[in-house]
Amino acid sequence: MPSIHLQSAPHSASFAAQLNLRYPIVQGPMNGGSPIELVTQVCNAGGLGSFAAALLSPAAIIAAVQKIRTLTTRPFNVNLFILETSQPAEAEIARAEELLLPFRDALGLGPATRPQKFSENFEEQLAALLEAAPPVVSFTFGILSADTVAQFHAKGSKVIGTATTVAEAVAWEQAGADFVCLQGAEAGGHRATFLGDIEQSSVGLMTLIPQAAAAVKLPLIAAGGIMDGRGIAAALLLGAQAAQLGTAFLACPESGIAPAWRAQLAVARDDSTRLTRSFSGRHARGIVNSYMEQMALHESALPAYPVQNALSAEIRQTAAKLSRPEFMSLWAGQGVAMARPMPAAQLVATLAAELQAPHAINY
Amino acid sequence: MPSIHLQSAPHSASFAAQLNLRYPIVQGPMNGGSPIELVTQVCNAGGLGSFAAALLSPAAIIAAVQKIRTLTTRPFNVNLFILETSQPAEAEIARAEELLLPFRDALGLGPATRPQKFSENFEEQLAALLEAAPPVVSFTFGILSADTVAQFHAKGSKVIGTATTVAEAVAWEQAGADFVCLQGAEAGGHRATFLGDIEQSSVGLMTLIPQAAAAVKLPLIAAGGIMDGRGIAAALLLGAQAAQLGTAFLACPESGIAPAWRAQLAVARDDSTRLTRSFSGRHARGIVNSYMEQMALHESALPAYPVQNALSAEIRQTAAKLSRPEFMSLWAGQGVAMARPMPAAQLVATLAAELQAPHAINY
Repeated sequence: MPSIHLQSAPHSASFAAQLNLRYPIVQGPMNGGSPIELVTQVCNAGGLGSFAAALLSPAAIIAAVQKIRTLTTRPFNVNLFILETSQPAEAEIARAEELLLPFRDALGLGPATRPQKFSENFEEQLAALLEAAPPVVSFTFGILSADTVAQFHAKGSKVIGTATTVAEAVAWEQAGADFVCLQGAEAGGHRATFLGDIEQSSVGLMTLIPQAAAAVKLPLIAAGGIMDGRGIAAALLLGAQAAQLGTAFLACPESGIAPAWRAQLAVARDDSTRLTRSFSGRHARGIVNSYMEQMALHESALPAYPVQNALSAEIRQTAAKLSRPEFMSLWAGQGVAMARPMPAAQLVATLAAELQAPHAINY
Repeated sequence: MPSIHLQSAPHSASFAAQLNLRYPIVQGPMNGGSPIELVTQVCNAGGLGSFAAALLSPAAIIAAVQKIRTLTTRPFNVNLFILETSQPAEAEIARAEELLLPFRDALGLGPATRPQKFSENFEEQLAALLEAAPPVVSFTFGILSADTVAQFHAKGSKVIGTATTVAEAVAWEQAGADFVCLQGAEAGGHRATFLGDIEQSSVGLMTLIPQAAAAVKLPLIAAGGIMDGRGIAAALLLGAQAAQLGTAFLACPESGIAPAWRAQLAVARDDSTRLTRSFSGRHARGIVNSYMEQMALHESALPAYPVQNALSAEIRQTAAKLSRPEFMSLWAGQGVAMARPMPAAQLVATLAAELQAPHAINY
């Protein structure tokens, strides 16, 4: 039977070689699903762990980076959301609060208290990240200026920009990024789209990778629906230099996600997810549940991230505590049914072994 | 530099071997874009050409199959839409006609004449296809009964069922199909979805192929965003036994598409397409234009296929004649920017050479 064999020696300018990684495997940043323990296990196993810092205060970001440095000597990545500060209209916020009332009632929560702030200040987070200077920083939801990219380079941090289209990959290359993470339509969690229409920018990896590889010279990291070594091999064959896996690592015990979320991951299918902006005000892929279905009609009218995210936070957190998955944001990619719950270090080793073994082609 | 090499010998029970094809390459059926000339060129070059018969009368289907037989001795495929007859409410039709009036006005068309019928009768088409008994038949939009599949087998026709999810692939296997065509979310034209929600059933090939390969034993044909030999190799690596390309063949001169459609294919990008049901009443992927944008707000209220398709036919046909792409259905997949206009036989040879050449892995 025909087979293919991927040799394991990265070339000198590749993503893995530049970062001195044993394997071209990245654990994707997941707010609420990639704590320090998961990140450092991945790093120590030879992949690139990614710490999601978007919801943290500047001081907490610095503390997290310090903590990670005590647990690994390997390169690691810290991820931020790029946010623009804008004040939504009071009526828009009030309407969103009203739409959330039935869910508060169902969970036994009293009237909502308006959050003092809707998110951390991005400029302050950015300053903290520059100060902490982790080996790798990654960004999503927007793009940095070339000046800011240069500031990270001056600190010794490599920069990964997240793109959902060729145009976004080109924009990151022009801004001076070191690597581009291509987020395919299959990916779980928030869409990184910052230039185009959300639907038109939901491009499948099978065709996004080769098109981006033809358009930019930067090493590409492919993300979305990749769950095993065969998927990593396919991404490399199509022109990527590494694969980023989120949902695959979410199933690891170190992810620390709520039991109800973990239970939903275990029963989800290829057709269990869709994009929604009902939870956060920004499109994200998750397992369809009652909250998503009930909010579907109002999705387009909800305030943008971070406002809706802040308004729905208590509902999501309470639902997680009470094991009520029907009101939780159950982020997952379209590959969720292929998730294999095992410790993160074992998952990295398994993926690497699958990648490097001969691949049977059965045609 | 590491490379992979796909050997070219199909195993005895494979899709290519069962059909005695030189290459595991299928030209996808495209109504209005895959005339007999294209189909037979692909067959004679060693791939499987697919003739789209969904819009033809029973007599025209029989005549087309006879004509194809005079032009090739190789296996070929004939595709039908599986339609259920249902009569929409008069008010729904009248409302759709009203929504189309501005486009008729813009094209200088007078008031619409209600079509005498909205589509050919599917049962009669099916009877004609059984009589014509081409070597391969394929179906989309629904599923056949096991009895009907057995009738095709008795006539010597192999049956391909189209699936967009694992559940749909399993359903076709249970109905007795010989092969399953997996339509990834990347694919241009109509979605085949018949079991689930349209959004949840828009699954990227990168993750749909391995999940379906784990669930069914039938040989899988992967369709959606595949435009070159590297894409075919990736699909085979993920578990498919063949790749089906539509948009790649649409760019061939033999497709016979209107010049305005061809011109739009030439300038489209990865983020130029989205799903719409504005043209036909059934979700389909095409290049975004003014018609799609203007109809977007009304999409959910339009009558289902085939009614909307019949109501909008004169607008689409007139726009094509007048080279007004803003009112045409510009079906295309997310790989459209990778299309290489060349004669169909040359495209098959190019794809086969790319597939069989060593594939560089640059990591």
